[in-house]
Amino acid sequence: MIKGSMKKVVVIGGGTGNFAVLRGLKRYPLDLTAIVSMADDGGSTGILRDELGVLPPGDVRQCLVALSNSSRLMRSLMNYRFENGGLGGHSFGNLFLSALEKVAGSFEKAVEEAGKILNIRGKVIPVTTHQVRLKMVLNNRTVLEGEKEIYLSQEIDQGYKTIYLEPHPKVNPQVIDAISTADLLVIGPGGLHTSLIPNLLVEGVCDAICRSDARKVFVVNLMNRRGQTTGYKTSHYLEELVRFLGQDIFDHILLNVQKPPKTLIEYYAVEGELVENDLVDSRLIESALLGPLANEAKKDFFKRNLIRHDSKKLAQELMKIVDHL
Amino acid sequence: MIKGSMKKVVVIGGGTGNFAVLRGLKRYPLDLTAIVSMADDGGSTGILRDELGVLPPGDVRQCLVALSNSSRLMRSLMNYRFENGGLGGHSFGNLFLSALEKVAGSFEKAVEEAGKILNIRGKVIPVTTHQVRLKMVLNNRTVLEGEKEIYLSQEIDQGYKTIYLEPHPKVNPQVIDAISTADLLVIGPGGLHTSLIPNLLVEGVCDAICRSDARKVFVVNLMNRRGQTTGYKTSHYLEELVRFLGQDIFDHILLNVQKPPKTLIEYYAVEGELVENDLVDSRLIESALLGPLANEAKKDFFKRNLIRHDSKKLAQELMKIVDHL
Repeated sequence: MIKGSMKKVVVIGGGTGNFAVLRGLKRYPLDLTAIVSMADDGGSTGILRDELGVLPPGDVRQCLVALSNSSRLMRSLMNYRFENGGLGGHSFGNLFLSALEKVAGSFEKAVEEAGKILNIRGKVIPVTTHQVRLKMVLNNRTVLEGEKEIYLSQEIDQGYKTIYLEPHPKVNPQVIDAISTADLLVIGPGGLHTSLIPNLLVEGVCDAICRSDARKVFVVNLMNRRGQTTGYKTSHYLEELVRFLGQDIFDHILLNVQKPPKTLIEYYAVEGELVENDLVDSRLIESALLGPLANEAKKDFFKRNLIRHDSKKLAQELMKIVDHL
Repeated sequence: MIKGSMKKVVVIGGGTGNFAVLRGLKRYPLDLTAIVSMADDGGSTGILRDELGVLPPGDVRQCLVALSNSSRLMRSLMNYRFENGGLGGHSFGNLFLSALEKVAGSFEKAVEEAGKILNIRGKVIPVTTHQVRLKMVLNNRTVLEGEKEIYLSQEIDQGYKTIYLEPHPKVNPQVIDAISTADLLVIGPGGLHTSLIPNLLVEGVCDAICRSDARKVFVVNLMNRRGQTTGYKTSHYLEELVRFLGQDIFDHILLNVQKPPKTLIEYYAVEGELVENDLVDSRLIESALLGPLANEAKKDFFKRNLIRHDSKKLAQELMKIVDHL
């Protein structure tokens, strides 16, 4: 199919949440774009930002790998983490993007070149190409500086006064273009305060989403994160996004209704609980969306069986929407 | 031209010496193989060996880049060195090969895959896939451990008792195969004790070279290295190689006769002097082989004008031999 006749799907997020959506959708003949938050400052990415002054590669790397049609070896290489010495903890793919940024002269060019090398289906666009920090002021007046600090906080569910990017960044014009011309916009799943909202904090993004004629889907997270979204139900996620967007622009709310095994829910209780649905809404699409579970007998059952979206099931539901556009 | 009908050229060395030969020859329709010494343990390569337990990537990286037909950006990326922090001094290409070794499961497989990614013309083969250290016992009984220590020593030209690899490694069978079936063998240019001889110390290599029906060329270095080969003339290089090979197997001795500018020779005097020829030998091929010099007026004249072989001129002389085979 030629590109002009393909439906344009734009996925907004960053972080691991987007991975399943992108990996699922890349199998279909779509004009696919991933818009990635640039607030990450933890781990390998944080060290590279601090030491090399590069833009955060981590989330972009994950989107590139999700969309890559290169060999399994190449994808493993991108996610490989060095174990020892001065390199310990660095993901190879992060080093790849950071070195490419230095050689190519800009992060945007680096992402574009990396996309070619990894033979990606679609396009990955950083929401901004400015160096920003995500900051949050809690109700108790504590200031959290950086996505990592916010991610690790156990007090966010007690309420926050404000969340913002510093300095206030310019949007990447490609983002506005992609959103404006999209046929389908997919927001989520992903960390509400660390992946989804950071995209909406960039000036012009919410406005572009609201004005876009695209069909708009919110994919609800499977799990709440303790201390971050404890006790959140579907309505809380929706309300919080709508607060930033200025209006409820969603046409569909895609929700998992498949229950994971009890043992797994209990094991994960320290990290968070399942998101319950409290909405009665004609926009809800309720579907079994969980990834397959490996054999329970296996020793590494819990490590292997993260409660996560199945990329194929997610894509099937999203494609039902696309096919009716 | 199909591969079976192409002449097989095998270049033995490693280090920067081979770079010009390989870069020059890759432009011709040849079945090209670079055999690379695995004794490097300095700088970025040394740190990776120590911290990750990988095989030394540095020399292999240089050969891959020399043979690469990928974009200039990709080649710049491979040679890019991180400047700051825990990554400071590491060449990206070294990290690439080391991560690929971990993911692919072996260094050989990593080199093969890297060759595909870099779209190389020809093949790069490590002389051994065992972890080895180059050691040298000087006449004054000082033991030098590691290529880096040998490279930095200022006493080698005072004579040495022995040079060896520890543990004594098995040769990579592909090396024997390549040498045995070669039409032309090119040895040098390169660091005599740190690049050329380390290949000859691997059991079976000298024997294979002596038995091979290939035409054999020795490309003489342009410069002596102070403290290493001070005062060496063509005959000294030849004699020392022949000592390891067991017999003088060379059919041709390719020698530069072009004089660099005096200012440059004076500037380089701290590092070493030009190699003078003392041979009267029908095997000598004397030719102007120096790389072009940039504008003398330029500030960075000395940094830019390393005295080095011109890849095109080298390849032209070598191709004259190939064309008469």
